[in-house]
Amino acid sequence: MDLSLMRELSVSTNSKIVLLVLDGLGGLPNEGGETELEAANSPHLDSLAAKSDLGLSRPVAAGVSPGSGPGHLALFGYDPLEYRVGRGVLSALGVGFELGENDLAARINFATKDESGKISDRRAGRIASSDAAKLVNLLNEEVELDGAKVSIVHEKEHRAVAVFHAGGLSGDLSDSDPQRTGLEPLPVEPTTADGAARESASLANAFIKEANRVLEDSHPANTILLRGFGMHPALPRFDEVYKLRAAAIAGYPMYKGLARLAGMQVLKEGEGIAGEFETLKENWDSYDFFFIHVKATDAAGEDGDARRKSAAIEEVDALLPGLLDLGPAALAITGDHATPAKMKSHSWHGVPFLLFSEYTLPTASSFGERTCAGGSLGVFAAEEIMGLLMGHALKLNRYGA
Amino acid sequence: MDLSLMRELSVSTNSKIVLLVLDGLGGLPNEGGETELEAANSPHLDSLAAKSDLGLSRPVAAGVSPGSGPGHLALFGYDPLEYRVGRGVLSALGVGFELGENDLAARINFATKDESGKISDRRAGRIASSDAAKLVNLLNEEVELDGAKVSIVHEKEHRAVAVFHAGGLSGDLSDSDPQRTGLEPLPVEPTTADGAARESASLANAFIKEANRVLEDSHPANTILLRGFGMHPALPRFDEVYKLRAAAIAGYPMYKGLARLAGMQVLKEGEGIAGEFETLKENWDSYDFFFIHVKATDAAGEDGDARRKSAAIEEVDALLPGLLDLGPAALAITGDHATPAKMKSHSWHGVPFLLFSEYTLPTASSFGERTCAGGSLGVFAAEEIMGLLMGHALKLNRYGA
Repeated sequence: MDLSLMRELSVSTNSKIVLLVLDGLGGLPNEGGETELEAANSPHLDSLAAKSDLGLSRPVAAGVSPGSGPGHLALFGYDPLEYRVGRGVLSALGVGFELGENDLAARINFATKDESGKISDRRAGRIASSDAAKLVNLLNEEVELDGAKVSIVHEKEHRAVAVFHAGGLSGDLSDSDPQRTGLEPLPVEPTTADGAARESASLANAFIKEANRVLEDSHPANTILLRGFGMHPALPRFDEVYKLRAAAIAGYPMYKGLARLAGMQVLKEGEGIAGEFETLKENWDSYDFFFIHVKATDAAGEDGDARRKSAAIEEVDALLPGLLDLGPAALAITGDHATPAKMKSHSWHGVPFLLFSEYTLPTASSFGERTCAGGSLGVFAAEEIMGLLMGHALKLNRYGA
Repeated sequence: MDLSLMRELSVSTNSKIVLLVLDGLGGLPNEGGETELEAANSPHLDSLAAKSDLGLSRPVAAGVSPGSGPGHLALFGYDPLEYRVGRGVLSALGVGFELGENDLAARINFATKDESGKISDRRAGRIASSDAAKLVNLLNEEVELDGAKVSIVHEKEHRAVAVFHAGGLSGDLSDSDPQRTGLEPLPVEPTTADGAARESASLANAFIKEANRVLEDSHPANTILLRGFGMHPALPRFDEVYKLRAAAIAGYPMYKGLARLAGMQVLKEGEGIAGEFETLKENWDSYDFFFIHVKATDAAGEDGDARRKSAAIEEVDALLPGLLDLGPAALAITGDHATPAKMKSHSWHGVPFLLFSEYTLPTASSFGERTCAGGSLGVFAAEEIMGLLMGHALKLNRYGA
């Protein structure tokens, strides 16, 4: 979306916007011929659909399955092809690390190196989380770098994150992970001619050398591989672009982190989906935009469990009347991408989108992929959702006379 | 739209294109559940829809309500975010002023200044039009500027337009209107580092000083406020881009002015909608593109009068057979934006679009927002309409071999 147009036209008002994201909402027909959303017994979503604009949103590009990062950036109105968030940054956000603007993050894999220096296992025998956590502590204590500080945070099993703090770093770096066993780790190299990239590459290589020294006797985790280098991305903030006091309600660190990148205030959520809706109610008067993230739909989709995904949708459905009672001026219900149970993974398919406000053109009486396909919004870029919400909440001035 | 592609592919033929714009055509469901277009008794539009391509067009961007300027620029194929027409220029066009390419226009408000120099009324007590017209004459007679000529034309009540003629002017200027009472008028300032902007700011400030001198004893209209500075925009011309001999039929000066900016010949229209259609018939052989503008739909929408808006559509409907008898190769019927009676204002919603030619893929048997939502054109940018019309009229060469 044209953020400068939003900056130009947006006005601060008291009307409330809610963006309710059911992660991985989109699906495909399962046995029986219905998608997870179509099969869900969701009377409140259906009756809301009968008063709403419907469409299918496309997160990134035709045929392209988005990760959670680009999926959410698009929902927040940022071009996911322009604003890239590296794997390292997402991992750092995912472990709750509060990245600063000068921070460079990278994903760490503990790995096994044989006597000849070649990688024999890229995951160090899927080392136990407890063992890996000890090695992370060791690295944090022992590794020393000239002119930079490095923080290592454990994720799970063989996975961890490194965050480098220093002035003038760059994320334009190649991975050290050779992606195959039987090869030596690659030196980290700058991918641009930039001086900052060259110095950052030296820093990363120095870090790897230090880690090799510290881990020398920790077989099978006797080395590390780095990949997904990236700087904290400089996203335009919600208050600056949309003039919104924005809050995020999410149970998982990565989504909280993404919301924080956009300048949202992360609220303490209660237990489960009901707890998230309770948090919304408690904070209703203090903000004028709420992003609520529901993870259970995506988790069930990834597990290939269509019934459990439908059940998660039904749980949200039961809570919907309470949300509507708060009186949002504009409410969008959608996903950051599709996760069809049939595919057990994120996919490129259009994501069902519903927008409820006083100013809609309803076209169907149920909320499903196929009613959305014939809706008044058609198939559209997810990046446009924020503009639609701003318009429906009457927070945009007219463009031109 | 990619105008250079149009330039490359367009060919001049004798086939006729008609772009019939029902201003503010788009609507929302009113009591009874139908939009103004859906509720209209319009048998000819419906039977034409059954032979046409349908879609919903979006004038500017998701959620963004366009003014008449950007709405029409998009219909004419110009990117409304690239080609901006300032409020002053639209006002000048609206009063029928034939702007030249070196002209700088600005909107004038007569206002009241108290003894301390602060603005006490931004509209001079909504001074009567007849009184304001006298002050406009006074300004035209008395104001003298070094190296520039200024023409002032009255609009209505406290509103007028100033057009500055000189070489090397720029519209990159800030308003003098402080937008609130109790404040002093602001000096006009250049908004770019451009020398032309600096000189234009000096000229505008000199004009304000002169106007203050002339209006000294004209309380409550003892000062003026300037806003919406803009130069005559250099739009690519229809004959050059599309190789069309283009004519415009419109009852209101602003739409005539917009058409003239695009290089269309403005025809003398007859009385009312029927008169416009009569003009079309009389000039049929002399042009190969006709833009016809019907204002009544928008005016009724702005008044919140759904029934009157439907009646205006019905009036057009009754005239449609006469238009079809002329045998246009391609006929589009649409609006420049939505003006739902329910909102009493322009809105961001999709605009019903119908394209009739020999080469269509009909999908419905009536013309309405919801049949258009499911049409073969889907939801698309209004900027693409000229390309569609050119294609359907067989005025575009194949692209590539």
